[in-house]
Amino acid sequence: MSILCVGSVALDSIETPFGKADRVLGGSAVYFSAAATVFNPVQLVGVVGDDYPIDDLGFLSERGADLSGIEQAAGESFFWAGRYHYDLNTRDTLDTQLGVFADFEPKIPEGFRDARFVFLGNIDPALQHDVLDQVASPEVVACDTMNFWIEGAREPLLELLGRVQILMINDEEVRQLADEPNLLKASRWVQARGPDIVVVKKGEHGAILFADDWIFYVPGYPLEEVFDPTGAGDSFAGGFMGQLARSGEVTPATLRRAMVYGSALGSFACERFSVERLVDLGSRDVAERVEEFRRLTAFETHLTVEQHV
Amino acid sequence: MSILCVGSVALDSIETPFGKADRVLGGSAVYFSAAATVFNPVQLVGVVGDDYPIDDLGFLSERGADLSGIEQAAGESFFWAGRYHYDLNTRDTLDTQLGVFADFEPKIPEGFRDARFVFLGNIDPALQHDVLDQVASPEVVACDTMNFWIEGAREPLLELLGRVQILMINDEEVRQLADEPNLLKASRWVQARGPDIVVVKKGEHGAILFADDWIFYVPGYPLEEVFDPTGAGDSFAGGFMGQLARSGEVTPATLRRAMVYGSALGSFACERFSVERLVDLGSRDVAERVEEFRRLTAFETHLTVEQHV
Repeated sequence: MSILCVGSVALDSIETPFGKADRVLGGSAVYFSAAATVFNPVQLVGVVGDDYPIDDLGFLSERGADLSGIEQAAGESFFWAGRYHYDLNTRDTLDTQLGVFADFEPKIPEGFRDARFVFLGNIDPALQHDVLDQVASPEVVACDTMNFWIEGAREPLLELLGRVQILMINDEEVRQLADEPNLLKASRWVQARGPDIVVVKKGEHGAILFADDWIFYVPGYPLEEVFDPTGAGDSFAGGFMGQLARSGEVTPATLRRAMVYGSALGSFACERFSVERLVDLGSRDVAERVEEFRRLTAFETHLTVEQHV
Repeated sequence: MSILCVGSVALDSIETPFGKADRVLGGSAVYFSAAATVFNPVQLVGVVGDDYPIDDLGFLSERGADLSGIEQAAGESFFWAGRYHYDLNTRDTLDTQLGVFADFEPKIPEGFRDARFVFLGNIDPALQHDVLDQVASPEVVACDTMNFWIEGAREPLLELLGRVQILMINDEEVRQLADEPNLLKASRWVQARGPDIVVVKKGEHGAILFADDWIFYVPGYPLEEVFDPTGAGDSFAGGFMGQLARSGEVTPATLRRAMVYGSALGSFACERFSVERLVDLGSRDVAERVEEFRRLTAFETHLTVEQHV
């Protein structure tokens, strides 16, 4: 079944130590869909201005994305410009123009309202509520957020947690949200407010999933060249939700697998500007990287716990 | 066979958000030995002042450590005082008194000179050279270092790399040493100067081992309470080398296993002040934690790479 994805559809101008890209495809919904559609169809809801190169999203349609929920409004598209520092772990925002995104009111097309899997990209929690109000009976709602909303829209965000099964958030943000430096405790704090699952994204350090009584850790893939980290978190989310929706059920086994596929897709996203690397990614490329993830962490011991009594 | 370990034997005064400890056992050689002797005997070389509570090291002797290489000199022991911040990832050094450690000249006892496994704790690279000059034919030399030596003793440190098989270093330090932000590239830079293996310690984010054509990643154990992170890196090194020496050979399988046992010992070290948690650690405790590490990263996929052709 398709995943309903609501988020930003943007244009990015990016500078890294390796080069520049000007007004290329960006936004949480675009990265998410580019990654998720490797595994599973997506129904995309967002807004763009009349300047948006909508044809460039054609690769998503070819992979089974339904773009009929992208509204084209008079005005300019959401635009973000950023420059990454030498180590690629920090960046400066050079410009943010909300454009038509400032007045975004997600309208979920009739045919999308029976979605079972929903991804709420990082937008105003009030809009994330609006989306859920329009979906009949979602089974797995994952949402992302950021410091801006944690500070400025805390109450609606906390209410949203009660409607969400999976919170995907980065390490600094979950610490800020819970006012607790320990990630395990911060995640327990979140879980007490609703989500069964908290996925903490740690950038180059990987990601960690906290369930009720188990934890799963996936490393960041050790890339020789992190070309452009923009969208890595949304690509992670896309790989994660794409795998989960393809499997059709949420179990410890499918969640673990989703984490690894998420990290794999996040790593591919860093290899080129924008969604370039995701556009022609084949399932064998992904399977090979997943196998590398296995080799990265697999080990054998000589004694079992029982032999140590 | 025993591991020869040369490093600091110190007294630490520590403040964390959870409490204070005054003049407790510390120093790289003490943490290393407390961890390594869970698996394998250690021969310890260091210097203490006449104020050192040497009897408190008795637990090491009971676990097979040979302390006859600890010289007791007139004067004060190496003393370090530090205060950890709220998040336990950063700390302020409040005081450092080198005491008798300032004039430390490692003298390796005759009976220690045939060591096959050697750990050079974080001391002046000139002294690390002195140690190796006294050891007949070491097979596996692992060494640690820090920013102070990278900046102030760069040439002897680079020469030392040519005599070392395993460099254990934290992420900031290897980036500084190689002047390269990418960990994979920084490790390749180190390997070109000697060590076959670079183990990069990333604190709460775990550790990553770079070999010639493979990489292994072990996460940090997600502790609910990081009580005192002092010595976690040296305890990691002790668990790593203790496992490696116990297996008696250096292969991809034994190195992977060593990484996991290292991370397990590092996590135990954080649970109490000083070496308290390591003192009565049983092999079953360790085996259970190692099993938790396996569950933390193990996953199944439905398709093999070949099925994706």
